[in-house]
Amino acid sequence: MKTVQKILSGGIVVTMNEAYDLFHDGAVAINDNSILAVGAREDILSQYQADEVIDCTGKVILPGLINAHTHVPMTLLRGMADDLRLDVWLLGYVMPTERTFVTPEFCELGTLLACAEMIRSGVTAFADMYYFEEHVAAATARAGMRGVLGQSILQFPTPDAGSYEEGIARCRAFIEAWRGHSLITPAVAPHAPYTNPDESLRLCTDLARDLDVPLLIHIAETRLEVENSLNEIGQTVVEHVHDVGLFDAKVLAAHCVHITKPEMKTLLDAGAGVAHCPTSNLKLASGIAPVTAMLKQGMNVGIGTDGPASNNDLDMFEEMRLAAILAKTEANDPTALPAREALLMATRQGAAALFIDDVTGSLQAGKRADIIVMDAHPLHNTPRFERDANSVYSRIVYAGKSSDVTDVLCEGRWLMRDRALLTVDVEAVLREAREIALRIDDFLRERESSVLSKLLAIGGLRQGESFEVQLKARLADGGEAVVERLLRHPDVEILKSNHYTQYDTWFLFGDPSEGRIRFREDVRADAVGQAGTSRTRLTLTTPDKERVFPGSTVLSYSRFIADATNTLRFYREYFRPTEERELQKDRRRWHILYQGVLFYVNLDTLIKPRLGARFIEIKSRTWSARDAELKAERIRQMLQIMGISPEDVVREDYLEIIAE
Amino acid sequence: MKTVQKILSGGIVVTMNEAYDLFHDGAVAINDNSILAVGAREDILSQYQADEVIDCTGKVILPGLINAHTHVPMTLLRGMADDLRLDVWLLGYVMPTERTFVTPEFCELGTLLACAEMIRSGVTAFADMYYFEEHVAAATARAGMRGVLGQSILQFPTPDAGSYEEGIARCRAFIEAWRGHSLITPAVAPHAPYTNPDESLRLCTDLARDLDVPLLIHIAETRLEVENSLNEIGQTVVEHVHDVGLFDAKVLAAHCVHITKPEMKTLLDAGAGVAHCPTSNLKLASGIAPVTAMLKQGMNVGIGTDGPASNNDLDMFEEMRLAAILAKTEANDPTALPAREALLMATRQGAAALFIDDVTGSLQAGKRADIIVMDAHPLHNTPRFERDANSVYSRIVYAGKSSDVTDVLCEGRWLMRDRALLTVDVEAVLREAREIALRIDDFLRERESSVLSKLLAIGGLRQGESFEVQLKARLADGGEAVVERLLRHPDVEILKSNHYTQYDTWFLFGDPSEGRIRFREDVRADAVGQAGTSRTRLTLTTPDKERVFPGSTVLSYSRFIADATNTLRFYREYFRPTEERELQKDRRRWHILYQGVLFYVNLDTLIKPRLGARFIEIKSRTWSARDAELKAERIRQMLQIMGISPEDVVREDYLEIIAE
Repeated sequence: MKTVQKILSGGIVVTMNEAYDLFHDGAVAINDNSILAVGAREDILSQYQADEVIDCTGKVILPGLINAHTHVPMTLLRGMADDLRLDVWLLGYVMPTERTFVTPEFCELGTLLACAEMIRSGVTAFADMYYFEEHVAAATARAGMRGVLGQSILQFPTPDAGSYEEGIARCRAFIEAWRGHSLITPAVAPHAPYTNPDESLRLCTDLARDLDVPLLIHIAETRLEVENSLNEIGQTVVEHVHDVGLFDAKVLAAHCVHITKPEMKTLLDAGAGVAHCPTSNLKLASGIAPVTAMLKQGMNVGIGTDGPASNNDLDMFEEMRLAAILAKTEANDPTALPAREALLMATRQGAAALFIDDVTGSLQAGKRADIIVMDAHPLHNTPRFERDANSVYSRIVYAGKSSDVTDVLCEGRWLMRDRALLTVDVEAVLREAREIALRIDDFLRERESSVLSKLLAIGGLRQGESFEVQLKARLADGGEAVVERLLRHPDVEILKSNHYTQYDTWFLFGDPSEGRIRFREDVRADAVGQAGTSRTRLTLTTPDKERVFPGSTVLSYSRFIADATNTLRFYREYFRPTEERELQKDRRRWHILYQGVLFYVNLDTLIKPRLGARFIEIKSRTWSARDAELKAERIRQMLQIMGISPEDVVREDYLEIIAE
Repeated sequence: MKTVQKILSGGIVVTMNEAYDLFHDGAVAINDNSILAVGAREDILSQYQADEVIDCTGKVILPGLINAHTHVPMTLLRGMADDLRLDVWLLGYVMPTERTFVTPEFCELGTLLACAEMIRSGVTAFADMYYFEEHVAAATARAGMRGVLGQSILQFPTPDAGSYEEGIARCRAFIEAWRGHSLITPAVAPHAPYTNPDESLRLCTDLARDLDVPLLIHIAETRLEVENSLNEIGQTVVEHVHDVGLFDAKVLAAHCVHITKPEMKTLLDAGAGVAHCPTSNLKLASGIAPVTAMLKQGMNVGIGTDGPASNNDLDMFEEMRLAAILAKTEANDPTALPAREALLMATRQGAAALFIDDVTGSLQAGKRADIIVMDAHPLHNTPRFERDANSVYSRIVYAGKSSDVTDVLCEGRWLMRDRALLTVDVEAVLREAREIALRIDDFLRERESSVLSKLLAIGGLRQGESFEVQLKARLADGGEAVVERLLRHPDVEILKSNHYTQYDTWFLFGDPSEGRIRFREDVRADAVGQAGTSRTRLTLTTPDKERVFPGSTVLSYSRFIADATNTLRFYREYFRPTEERELQKDRRRWHILYQGVLFYVNLDTLIKPRLGARFIEIKSRTWSARDAELKAERIRQMLQIMGISPEDVVREDYLEIIAE
């Protein structure tokens, strides 16, 4: 009779080993951090005695679940912004918040919060990709969980690195510091092929191979990513990273929503794991991954929650169930991905996808004691049929809940007993999380307090201020002839002329003092359809800083943002205007010097709405009240040169003219 | 200061009224069964005082959820059989079990179990379709829940009616007995258009209209249903029931997975409600309902769990979340079906779909007090952002769990306090449910104990016994000439002749004593491709009852089932053979009298596998040992007439011949 530290005794032992052994009145003997024996209760109790015998009658004993893809510190951003399109969510909310708030302390706190939630829902291991990953590692180890933790690498500045080179250097230091830890497998995590240049992917691969650690990456999450890859590189995403040499490393590819059968073959041959994230993929409308096809090919597919900012939780029971039922509709076959296979993905196969199946993922002698215990038949999982051995898997996957998990062991250490967490000070974590949420709320409230601050928040765009004097007049007819009079005047020198079609979209807001935003696309009229002949700009105009000079020249103030790098759709969803107006015009434009002073002259024809009206505009930037007065006087003179009567001068801008 | 019975005080009151009013430190005043006032806590407390003030600080107070489609007694069949195709599941497992077990007591117990689970997950009202609905009503009222309860009507015998006429008579009595009950809305529930003749649908409509009750029905759940309707009637399902006049009643249509925009318009114009059941639709691979299109049209769409035999639980939090995230991928738009709209579907809009929005579905003065209270920020729903008013909906829908619900009121009566159920004796219900599960397990075990009992269990098929004497001989060549010798013999009279191609599929099982099943399709060789020229039969042959007579005539025994009404695929998935063999032959067959005794003569050519061999068979049914001996002697004589040498006689049947 051998004495061991712990015996879990009674209940149904679901081993998830290769033979799928089930012991209906089973037991597990544990010593130190490992499983010593698994079997029928009588057999185990006849061979082992323990200091601690845990009665699991009426329970199910199974391997700890494995969350194959997440971003644990983002738990602190749960519910911050939902029901938004990916780019609005990411560029408009998540990244501005991350730039301001993500610190080592943020990462440790978020990790502890996530670990607490995961332990309570029966997860013992997870794969993570985030920043300051050494702090994620420290918190994970403190919580006693197993992690494959990837330091994120991106080509643009992140909260913890100014460049991918710096990120890779951080990553090397992180891996060297944590390699060999019994719980933590450090990893390198180039964020995605579309956020890393090939050189970065190559350096990440070299690092992973040199130090023999996994490489974590997002692959083919959206259709757009695949389309861009095909358009820009002429290859699918998997083909591309294969050519770059990424599969020289042990790759865990998250998502793989839009991959073809040949790409599956490439991943299979490379021994890559896949993290399937059904909730996140549905919620972000990314699509439904072809999981049954991947499994049929023999790939190692795990299941992940993704970050709680896009899920919005870390519940692997929900994820398992969704994986199982979604695959049936995707494959048009209700027998596809049966419950046992879904549980396999969340345990042993998930461990294989994370390259840690030598130590976890099933209840087998020699593996680490990563074990969870759950109620076998709570109210919502009653009654219990025993005729078919598969019904135990069906109960766990289709009607089991995270709240049924009562006890959790990882590396032979108790992380939870009777639903009480033992390694995380939940009250302290909740309190600190609340404080951060309040600060983020204030930050976002301030930012959303005006259109201007919202505009500034999306960053990456230049801000400028501009005072402009401007005069506009309606032309009865003969527009060109009128302008010719000015252009041929001896005091005028023409510097440059252009011809555009201008497409303006104006966003109006409930409070006019907020200003209004103009999204303008200029297309060169002589080069329609040619590349590089169109440019887009975003301008915020505030109406409250005007002054009118004699002769009706107007002083206006605008705060402009050059180069609108996102689409009109993005800005619409981000700013949520209360009203929107469209304006299209043909513009001939001259840059002239009048008496040595720079002015812009526009000859505009309104195309949409089709008013048939033509207008002339004379404008100039200005920097002082005196300068503005002098320029207003010169504009009055030019008006006389063209023979335009003061009655034709209009003070309204085009938006007001078309609204009349 | 008015005195009322109860005030829920503090916490976030989510009214779900037309204005979506939220009170962040709110209160609800309740008197008797109704809501008297909803508002800011200060306002309510300045106007009302109560015998019972319930402190809801740190909680969310919201309308009880509405489960728009389920079959509550089937909770007792949860997890009995999963991961099967719909027909195998229904015809192979559910219906045989229902035929044997569904009684009034079964329905009451199942309803109590379901009510307990639903109350614990924040549901206060549901729509049901099952049998013995008066017992479902009695149990629902006892549990204190609100129900729109439909007595199911089908064209074939059910556990509670031998015909649809009988079902409708039962239904009328049920409605008359329960009409006017404050909690129960009795209803008529023709199961589906494909399980009811038009006459039954018309009678159900008349009944619903006469007694002014809703009509519940399954509509367009599967693509097959729609295809069959188009093929057989030339109309879509909604067009068909519209023409039958169904929409003269107040219709609640479950599923509507495969409906077109014009059908949505028809449902909208009819004022019909829809019950969307995403988990069930995914799990049974029925597809994804076009929910955003329905909502855009202005239809009342509620959310249902469907029965726990196909879900496998009654958790409306899971269902709301799935409805919200699935719609985004279905619409290819992450902003589709935002959280607030999903909660609306599960509350006020669901109530409208059930025709009970005058009394429930939102927190408004005058409506019944159907209210639930849940933890606002448990661990898995931390942190909490308040900047955006919509974030409370996001927290409830995307990260809320049924286990967060702490208190439930229905009609002003407490059904749960601090997660303790007050109206259902859970221990008794669980105990009785366990007992029924054991009996069902025994029943299914017995049934699955042999191929024969499994065959008998699917019912609807005729069973027969047959003893047959039979001789088979291999023909070297000249098959027709050999048979001609017999047919022209003066002792022979030809009664009938046929020419078939026979397609046989044999199911073999691990234990040969189980027998084997032959699925045979006979196609008349002279009329290939014509309708009605093919028939399919299922035969079970048990090998252990053979006897061999002199001259090698064999006595065999078979238990046969005429007319295989299901497809080969169905039987394959139902019987799960360990091995399968295919055999195809050309058969010329004569019914002859030899010396006045009936024999069958077959001239067979094996086509698949292509052995090139031809065989002659002589057979006759027999009823006694003496008769068998006499017939064996006559077969020996016929062999001599044809000049077949005894060495050419083979005892093996075709399966063994092809296996050689």
